[in-house]
Amino acid sequence: MSSVDVPVALLGYGTVGSAVNRLLVQNADEIERSTGHRLRVVRALVRDPDAEREFLPDPSILTTDIGAISGDASIQLVAEVMGGIEATGGYVLDLLRSGRSVVSANKQLVARRGAELFAAASGAGVQLRFEASVCAAIPVIKVLRESLSFSRVHRVLGIVNGTTNFILTRMEAGAEYAQALAEAQQLGYAEADPTDDVSGADAAAKMAILATVAFGVRVGLEDVLYEGIEHVRPEHVEAARELDMTVRLVGAATLVDGGFDVRVQAAFVDRHHPLAAVEGAFNAVMLQGDAIREITLEGPGAGGVETASAVVADIVSVVGTAATGFLHNDAAWRTLPRLPAGDLRSRYYVRIEVDDRPGVLAHVAEQLAAQGVSVARLAQRQLDDGASLDLVTHEASSGRVEAALATVAELPEVRGTPTLMRVISERGV
Amino acid sequence: MSSVDVPVALLGYGTVGSAVNRLLVQNADEIERSTGHRLRVVRALVRDPDAEREFLPDPSILTTDIGAISGDASIQLVAEVMGGIEATGGYVLDLLRSGRSVVSANKQLVARRGAELFAAASGAGVQLRFEASVCAAIPVIKVLRESLSFSRVHRVLGIVNGTTNFILTRMEAGAEYAQALAEAQQLGYAEADPTDDVSGADAAAKMAILATVAFGVRVGLEDVLYEGIEHVRPEHVEAARELDMTVRLVGAATLVDGGFDVRVQAAFVDRHHPLAAVEGAFNAVMLQGDAIREITLEGPGAGGVETASAVVADIVSVVGTAATGFLHNDAAWRTLPRLPAGDLRSRYYVRIEVDDRPGVLAHVAEQLAAQGVSVARLAQRQLDDGASLDLVTHEASSGRVEAALATVAELPEVRGTPTLMRVISERGV
Repeated sequence: MSSVDVPVALLGYGTVGSAVNRLLVQNADEIERSTGHRLRVVRALVRDPDAEREFLPDPSILTTDIGAISGDASIQLVAEVMGGIEATGGYVLDLLRSGRSVVSANKQLVARRGAELFAAASGAGVQLRFEASVCAAIPVIKVLRESLSFSRVHRVLGIVNGTTNFILTRMEAGAEYAQALAEAQQLGYAEADPTDDVSGADAAAKMAILATVAFGVRVGLEDVLYEGIEHVRPEHVEAARELDMTVRLVGAATLVDGGFDVRVQAAFVDRHHPLAAVEGAFNAVMLQGDAIREITLEGPGAGGVETASAVVADIVSVVGTAATGFLHNDAAWRTLPRLPAGDLRSRYYVRIEVDDRPGVLAHVAEQLAAQGVSVARLAQRQLDDGASLDLVTHEASSGRVEAALATVAELPEVRGTPTLMRVISERGV
Repeated sequence: MSSVDVPVALLGYGTVGSAVNRLLVQNADEIERSTGHRLRVVRALVRDPDAEREFLPDPSILTTDIGAISGDASIQLVAEVMGGIEATGGYVLDLLRSGRSVVSANKQLVARRGAELFAAASGAGVQLRFEASVCAAIPVIKVLRESLSFSRVHRVLGIVNGTTNFILTRMEAGAEYAQALAEAQQLGYAEADPTDDVSGADAAAKMAILATVAFGVRVGLEDVLYEGIEHVRPEHVEAARELDMTVRLVGAATLVDGGFDVRVQAAFVDRHHPLAAVEGAFNAVMLQGDAIREITLEGPGAGGVETASAVVADIVSVVGTAATGFLHNDAAWRTLPRLPAGDLRSRYYVRIEVDDRPGVLAHVAEQLAAQGVSVARLAQRQLDDGASLDLVTHEASSGRVEAALATVAELPEVRGTPTLMRVISERGV
């Protein structure tokens, strides 16, 4: 195949956009070797052409006019690295409808408007790729769509937010939550307003995308039950250590006959589970399926160059599979209901603070037994003023455990609200 | 795109072949959804058509005549799952030359005859894929060739043999080598003759393929320096534990300006390194490159269904990237020399057994210093009869460390041959 020039346009030319162009220029030979095509950024949509850019060999590519891209028929491939939902979504939809393949790094856009975008891409027979929207350089979307498309993946477990994983790793080393967060902000792992990360919202968007692609079911942001790590306290981290586990913010998507469940929650992860080994700002996604048992992909889940690397991988893949390539139809091809939230079966860690007097354990155990929740492990500890019960249940539905804890919380000898976290221990289930 | 029937032929129809056919039948809808094509096994080359098969809905597909495949122009895609090198290599070459894309699960064939096979595929403009030849279902070849083709991967670290990893994991739990090997054989993780696995030869073939694909340099089996795990003793495992490390058989491929180095050796791996978390018969491969920092893929590295899953993933990828797809030219596109074996710089673990008398440590330290090897950590222990020195060096070239140990071994107070193992601790370097 002789080399063909492929003009590429970018929407946005900030940190990621600059890095995309730099990678395309620096690796033009490698890309030509693997695809037979020579790629070149010919236009980039920006708000302010005079702003400082990290890499811009040819300033004349900058434009403030989307028409300079949408009106140029030679441009068949566009990468969206500008962020935003409303205006950006409109641009991307128009480009797809007019027959351009689009690569997007925008998790909020894909998680919220995936259905429209896929419909537009399918209608025009072009590709929509979005590797960079989930876990940056980790090629989990490509692996799911091309290597495992037939593997009936039925569970996805992920550490998909580096900020919270960094904070939890620091807490494991002895830091308090606030201190660990401040450190994350200082190192640039957390924003000045860290809400999106620490609330679990960022992880929820990524899990919605992963569940959609893995299960072939449209999972929207509104289908994801999520919480963050603000409630994780040093005593939880300590209790986890004593159980040979570690606290992680885990995204878990489960497919069963008849429905799906997607949630993001702080969980106790067994020390021997691959997710327990994910430290600092790294991400990892474990895929469980019939023929593959489980495959885990780990790597840096954020960063300008890492994100750009995933964008370029998608650009290369569009070029490498053009025309008669993978269809990359709508990832969601079937409709399934979301399972009732209380149906999810798991083992759970429970911490209850109580008055230190005889009979308390019996009262607590009674409430758990009344909901059919049985206790696998228990440690009772003296506190300065009272006692704590740290226990791990056998497998039970979350609804039963929550109902039991609601009545436990009403007991006169129980203080405050009990802590409930899922336990992730077994592999391949 | 309307659905098109794609006839597929198999060379071999044993455990893997049966599983490939079963996966293709059971997941025909999923595959059609992702590629637009309906795949069907129409011929399978076998030696004995009457042998028992695990899955064979249509016995008439079996043939003992390669001509029934090579002579059928409707067959454009063949998967080789029969093993062997001479006859099998001849079949595969002929098929590639006559314009058929070939998927192979055969690591020995790819590692030994890769150059010929790639030349034949390039010449005919067809694809040669070999995901299943390395680490079964873990999609590391696809990720390297399609997602990271431009990422300048400069190091590959892998646990690519499940048998030895199982044995080392069992030794960590207290078993002796012979006992752990017997257990691996009983569980079907090791052959009756385990030489290929425990000698490192199996891992060496996989590392040759990985290095070729990652670096774009032809790395043959003869370029890989390898050893196995027969010399790993409980005291090494114990010393590793005390250093917060674990013993693993690690394949390490390194690309530097001007050359490459590929070796398979038992190594001390820091407990916080992703490879330390790989337990039992699992495999993992860590890829380090400029834009990606490091990406680790972990999963089952063997098994009939897992291998079949990778074969099917390749079949699907050939169909999904046909005609104008990824070139999948020869993975090796440049020539670089192998580095002198002694040049590899690393930290090293050294164990020396000595007579327990004053001055021994000084003598040993002198020999190390004479070669410029400095000691980072040291533990001296009483043995029943004598003493042991367990030490970790600062970074040094392996040649210098080996030269120092050769003179140490000559000291009158030193007993037996010192143990030398590489230490793998830092990430992203």
